[in-house]
Amino acid sequence: MPAAELPHITADILARLRVRAPRVHCITNSVAQAFTANILLAAGAIPSMTLSADEIGTFVGRADALLVNLGTFDEERREATAAALGVVSERRLPWVLDPVFIDRSEPRAEHAKSLVALTPDAIRLNHAEFMALSDSDPEDAALKRYALDTLAVVALTGTVDRITDGACFISIENGHPLMGRVTAMGCAASALAAAFLAIESDAFAATAAALLCLGVAGGIAGDRASGPGSFPAALLDALYALDKHTLEEKARVA
Amino acid sequence: MPAAELPHITADILARLRVRAPRVHCITNSVAQAFTANILLAAGAIPSMTLSADEIGTFVGRADALLVNLGTFDEERREATAAALGVVSERRLPWVLDPVFIDRSEPRAEHAKSLVALTPDAIRLNHAEFMALSDSDPEDAALKRYALDTLAVVALTGTVDRITDGACFISIENGHPLMGRVTAMGCAASALAAAFLAIESDAFAATAAALLCLGVAGGIAGDRASGPGSFPAALLDALYALDKHTLEEKARVA
Amino acid sequence: MPAAELPHITADILARLRVRAPRVHCITNSVAQAFTANILLAAGAIPSMTLSADEIGTFVGRADALLVNLGTFDEERREATAAALGVVSERRLPWVLDPVFIDRSEPRAEHAKSLVALTPDAIRLNHAEFMALSDSDPEDAALKRYALDTLAVVALTGTVDRITDGACFISIENGHPLMGRVTAMGCAASALAAAFLAIESDAFAATAAALLCLGVAGGIAGDRASGPGSFPAALLDALYALDKHTLEEKARVA
Repeated sequence: MPAAELPHITADILARLRVRAPRVHCITNSVAQAFTANILLAAGAIPSMTLSADEIGTFVGRADALLVNLGTFDEERREATAAALGVVSERRLPWVLDPVFIDRSEPRAEHAKSLVALTPDAIRLNHAEFMALSDSDPEDAALKRYALDTLAVVALTGTVDRITDGACFISIENGHPLMGRVTAMGCAASALAAAFLAIESDAFAATAAALLCLGVAGGIAGDRASGPGSFPAALLDALYALDKHTLEEKARVA
Repeated sequence: MPAAELPHITADILARLRVRAPRVHCITNSVAQAFTANILLAAGAIPSMTLSADEIGTFVGRADALLVNLGTFDEERREATAAALGVVSERRLPWVLDPVFIDRSEPRAEHAKSLVALTPDAIRLNHAEFMALSDSDPEDAALKRYALDTLAVVALTGTVDRITDGACFISIENGHPLMGRVTAMGCAASALAAAFLAIESDAFAATAAALLCLGVAGGIAGDRASGPGSFPAALLDALYALDKHTLEEKARVA
Repeated sequence: MPAAELPHITADILARLRVRAPRVHCITNSVAQAFTANILLAAGAIPSMTLSADEIGTFVGRADALLVNLGTFDEERREATAAALGVVSERRLPWVLDPVFIDRSEPRAEHAKSLVALTPDAIRLNHAEFMALSDSDPEDAALKRYALDTLAVVALTGTVDRITDGACFISIENGHPLMGRVTAMGCAASALAAAFLAIESDAFAATAAALLCLGVAGGIAGDRASGPGSFPAALLDALYALDKHTLEEKARVA
């Protein structure tokens, strides 16, 4: 996929998402739950978040994609993940791994590695998390190699988002510095990627499209907001209103 | 109660609520906790949310109403509910059941049915949840029959909210489509109903009044908000400012 | 420290905080997590919130301060606190105790007393919580005595915030009534105090400075907001933008 095609591909996936309203089950940290739910709803998806071992199988069995986010990881989330991934594997559902803060905790990094071995469709992380996961600096070549090794789309977000499946590679320069001053923004990006993967079987396109949506919405929100307090609401409003014209006009991809 | 009387009855209950500031203990899902607390505070009630088995009895013992919301249900919430309902029964406190997502999980639906047998004062749910709970379509007659069978006020919310205790029946056409694009809106409605039940012993009037407040505030918020991001804050602002004149002017009840 | 010096001392600590971006690990209640994280991020600190017993030691070991907030206290948080305080003691990290709702639950009050014995650098609480903790009315003299007894800075917040270490005493009359109509505002104040303690070794100055920032930001937000819904975003925006000039102009300290 040439980078220039990403905006209209994104508009197409987003349009289908709004019609189909995919269900995304989220195993995510307690800090991010409400904002993640609202990101999914604003985009047109239907979130669910239950973690209970005796119910999560049923929820995932009726969902269209799964998010596994390692923030505030604990025994309950560990068991929930195992049960959920069993269903994901049976039903061949797409899923996204978000290895939050694995640079802060060795056991969590080890757990993340064991989850990578279960072949998520996409892994979204930041600079420090990539280093903890892959033991290498996030050069473009290292990202590609890691994607090839893991069979996952790797999406490293930051000032510039870089997405690769090992073959294709795309950079997105949208977004806004305030995205780093609000909690759960990365978690929401991963959830959005899961929603897009529910709609689009090309995992590279789906992941890049989700990040482009969030980046463009973030840029618009940055222009409108008065600070990190008003920023999340402005971002949700912009994501809800996002259209093809805006995506094509604002996208800064290479 | 004739429908035309609901606006002024609502204004009266709301005025008493603001003076008495009832305590509402909420067993609710982790996604909805913060927004639910803010809805209660905006209306004039005092929320508490602890779930710990060794404390919840004391909290409920000092509360004026209880909410039991089945979202993100787990062992901790199951035990908390049992302990809380013991105190509710002793102290004859009003309580509301919100059987979130029971259409997605059979064990949760079974648990909801066992809670209905403990006679909540009101049950607030949506279309799919009513079907899972009652095994019938939510026709007006079925709602009435279910209310009579369970001795609970049944409040089915959606584009039109319908509330019945089996004898009285009222429809509220306030609200706004954005209410469905924000997480925890239904959960907040149930919490508000609990706060109103703490103030008003006529459970039908209390439940209908709570939903009218939320619907009118939602309509005002829909006019002011730029999308689902700015909507929740606008709704809280409108709920906080709600007065008799606005309720009478905006209410669309039948 | 003369009260008149607080505004410029506050500006100085805040400037250092923004440069150093201290890590604050928060054991806090599930209702307050997202807002607390956003308060810390808006001020310039980096929050983490994991509770898992096998990870919290590592997180606290890499943090610059700890918050222990007793809202929604449970077994998981109790164990997390024990593990975290072990690391705090080894590494001599500053920590803040926020004994939420101990006036509602005797076991929680007992637990709070046992934590006070582990010498938090600061205790932030309200009127009812102080009474439950100290068995005395919160007269100025009682606050001072309690601070001397516990070796903690005591910060009692309300319409007027009063802060003392037993020797120094300061009153802050900033803030806004809407701060009481939004959940987690006190929790956020305690988290902010922890961030300031990470930067400034004078615990009295650090605690008073944190409360002055929140009070001034709250006053600005109260002027801008339309109600309790728009208030938290306005407060975060104001906190993010806070500068020396604004602090000196708006501070009402004695």
